[in-house]
Amino acid sequence: MNLLLLEDSDFISANRVILQGRRLQHLRAVQRVEAGDSLRVGLLDGLMGEGLITALDEHHAELDVRLDAVVPDKLPLTLLLALPRPKMLKRILQTISAMGVPRLVLLNSYRVEKSFWQTPFLSPEAIREQLLLGLEQARDTVLPEIIIEKRFKPFVEDRLPALAAGSLGLTGHPGNYPDCPRAVSQPVTLAIGPEGGWIPYEVELLEKAGLQPVQLGARILRVENAVPALLARLF
Amino acid sequence: MNLLLLEDSDFISANRVILQGRRLQHLRAVQRVEAGDSLRVGLLDGLMGEGLITALDEHHAELDVRLDAVVPDKLPLTLLLALPRPKMLKRILQTISAMGVPRLVLLNSYRVEKSFWQTPFLSPEAIREQLLLGLEQARDTVLPEIIIEKRFKPFVEDRLPALAAGSLGLTGHPGNYPDCPRAVSQPVTLAIGPEGGWIPYEVELLEKAGLQPVQLGARILRVENAVPALLARLF
Repeated sequence: MNLLLLEDSDFISANRVILQGRRLQHLRAVQRVEAGDSLRVGLLDGLMGEGLITALDEHHAELDVRLDAVVPDKLPLTLLLALPRPKMLKRILQTISAMGVPRLVLLNSYRVEKSFWQTPFLSPEAIREQLLLGLEQARDTVLPEIIIEKRFKPFVEDRLPALAAGSLGLTGHPGNYPDCPRAVSQPVTLAIGPEGGWIPYEVELLEKAGLQPVQLGARILRVENAVPALLARLF
Repeated sequence: MNLLLLEDSDFISANRVILQGRRLQHLRAVQRVEAGDSLRVGLLDGLMGEGLITALDEHHAELDVRLDAVVPDKLPLTLLLALPRPKMLKRILQTISAMGVPRLVLLNSYRVEKSFWQTPFLSPEAIREQLLLGLEQARDTVLPEIIIEKRFKPFVEDRLPALAAGSLGLTGHPGNYPDCPRAVSQPVTLAIGPEGGWIPYEVELLEKAGLQPVQLGARILRVENAVPALLARLF
């Protein structure tokens, strides 16, 4: 982790923090910090800065904290993602959090296996855990918003047009479509399909909602590669 | 898998193939094909095309094969990568193979843990297995070349200048450097560091060998995201 994330409840005074649990273990076992060391800290949904470790033992760490640095901007993006298989979901939640996606819609699709919706990794606590790991990796403090939509058609027909209004709407889809644009300057709404891709009916419905199909070349990428590749190309 | 990869030894005549083992199991259990089905096939290091399944049981599959389609171009890139931890190495080998990297140098660095060099995933058979999975994912037939360099300094000082000659040399490194360029038209030699980054001495040595440091923004990405992000931005 490249940033130690703090919450309001960690503070015992205006600039003094006490840590226990996972973050304490990580500081001791992985980062191997000692009293006197400084490290990057950030307040969840707040500023970043430096923390000086004033005391450290197996039960707690105490830090003096100075928060004076702004966090990196989010991307101007709403990302729609067909629900990936559970193992990939965990990694992708970390990825979108690390890369600065402010809003992710996890969406059903014909090729999403029904069992994927049963995974415990979709619980709010499990989602939050992966998002926090992404923030710690990238040095950001602001959690993305995650929206879960188990029904494709009502979401795309009734809610997506308003969500995508005023943005460049794109559906990533292999085929004879225009290339995905580069370095755009406006907000984007981007839909990425499941392994096996969207079915034609879904591409049509997304297009009616304002999302034009674009492609990334002849190679078919896994979702975990398509997401960073499309974000890096677009922004 | 989006492509069934064949080898010369699978052919019993000019356009007839018999399969057993892993690929047979995958056809039956995952793709659930039946006699009469057609699927995409490719000859390792050769053309792609269609295969018609003429017979299928638990012991073998027999296909009539027509190979008439060229494979997608590789990227004009030599990628230098500080050896990642074993679990990530497997995924990254698949990624670079799928994304069309023709040559990968796995390199030592100060922040590469020595134990990483002991992993069985560095054996030629294990590397080849991951590369094949990447080709099957992306629909390509040509294996990338993998070069293993356990000593940073002799490689960067003695071999890298010739390897990078005539290409745009870049080192991905967070910091106050120019942005990574977009959509370049010339060949590229790109070095991506370990978790924790290159140390300054390494950045200097890479620069002397012709690789200029460039950055991807304030966010620190995991190597598995930095690779697809940098490739998508560069090409």
